[in-house]
Amino acid sequence: MSNVSSLSSSRAASAGRAKGQQTKAAIVDAALQLAAQIGLEGLSIGLIAESLKMSKSGVFAHFGSREELQISVVREYHTRFEQEVFFTALQAERGLPRVRALFDNWMKRSTIEIDSGCIYIGGAVEFDDRPGPVRDELSHSVHTWLGAMQRAIDIAIEEGHLRPDTDSAQMGFEIHALILALHYEARFLRNPAALQRAQLAFEGIVQRYQALPGHSARPNVRSDARKTSTRSSA
Amino acid sequence: MSNVSSLSSSRAASAGRAKGQQTKAAIVDAALQLAAQIGLEGLSIGLIAESLKMSKSGVFAHFGSREELQISVVREYHTRFEQEVFFTALQAERGLPRVRALFDNWMKRSTIEIDSGCIYIGGAVEFDDRPGPVRDELSHSVHTWLGAMQRAIDIAIEEGHLRPDTDSAQMGFEIHALILALHYEARFLRNPAALQRAQLAFEGIVQRYQALPGHSARPNVRSDARKTSTRSSA
Repeated sequence: MSNVSSLSSSRAASAGRAKGQQTKAAIVDAALQLAAQIGLEGLSIGLIAESLKMSKSGVFAHFGSREELQISVVREYHTRFEQEVFFTALQAERGLPRVRALFDNWMKRSTIEIDSGCIYIGGAVEFDDRPGPVRDELSHSVHTWLGAMQRAIDIAIEEGHLRPDTDSAQMGFEIHALILALHYEARFLRNPAALQRAQLAFEGIVQRYQALPGHSARPNVRSDARKTSTRSSA
Repeated sequence: MSNVSSLSSSRAASAGRAKGQQTKAAIVDAALQLAAQIGLEGLSIGLIAESLKMSKSGVFAHFGSREELQISVVREYHTRFEQEVFFTALQAERGLPRVRALFDNWMKRSTIEIDSGCIYIGGAVEFDDRPGPVRDELSHSVHTWLGAMQRAIDIAIEEGHLRPDTDSAQMGFEIHALILALHYEARFLRNPAALQRAQLAFEGIVQRYQALPGHSARPNVRSDARKTSTRSSA
């Protein structure tokens, strides 16, 4: 009998936790949408409570402070970004095709964000001179993503798709620049050609670093026949 | 006697006007410094009054509204930007040397603004989805500057320094991207190599568009021997 009652109370506790997690996710989702429009700094527990028709204390039960909420928003943004931009690009072949897929996905996401705003770009302006855990989380997320892009470039060098003397950090910087310009020119200057300009510029960068046929560092073997290490085997 | 008194009252009025203009300039200067740190949206008449140890009504006498003050700040920023970046570059020879000088000056200014913040970049994030006269002024200023950069590129094409098929708007977009990346990576990501990356990338862009010796559209004549029209004579 004690077994049955403990089982049922454990089920109730588990259902309660699941409901709690759902509410928490709904709060983060609402906060993320708000932050994209009004900025991370514009977020407040009161505003989120209002948008979800919850009490302030109800929101507080899940996030002890505004800062904790802001950090959760940055993490959720990062998770979605990773899903849309990074993981879907892994379907492309290793090397230059994957670098292209990463850039294409990044541009797609930026194009959507021309209307909604971008946490990484807006957040950088909000927090560039405000040290603290929100800035750290934001900066960590951006570094993680730029690092993933750089590794993809390193693989393209390994595969012989890009010249062996390609500086992957340099190429990564140049690609990042195009996304920043796309966002600025399309969203702020309302330049209708911004997307096309970013695409053309990307092709220019690829051409500059691309290995000439016959000048590859190594034979251009089929990528799926090789192991997926990001380290150069040179 | 009436002449003397009218002269003296006109002198007094003129001295009053001069004093008024000085005060107005001091207000704009303080507001510009504040805006670089906390953003245009953070500006308030009260904050400026406090920083200048003036009364709020004293500030109000010069700027009827916060919006008017924000617009004056954007104009003052533009004037200083033009002075530092544009006018000093006119000393460089027409063509590619002047494009280089414009980029160098722009980078120099951006490097200073790594500490203080940039009104054009920060303001874009603050006002990208807020239509109104402040956004219009900001967007107008940025368009004016990017237009001047594009004209300098057009002249470099005319001079035969850049390939005749160079798309000056495209090259301008790519250069603008580098400044945005320099600002983002140096100020937010604290990437110590950002300046060098931007310089290297600029050289890459120039190489891509540069006319090969002997492939110039026209003989590379001494620039100071030619009139300074920005229109192509082709």
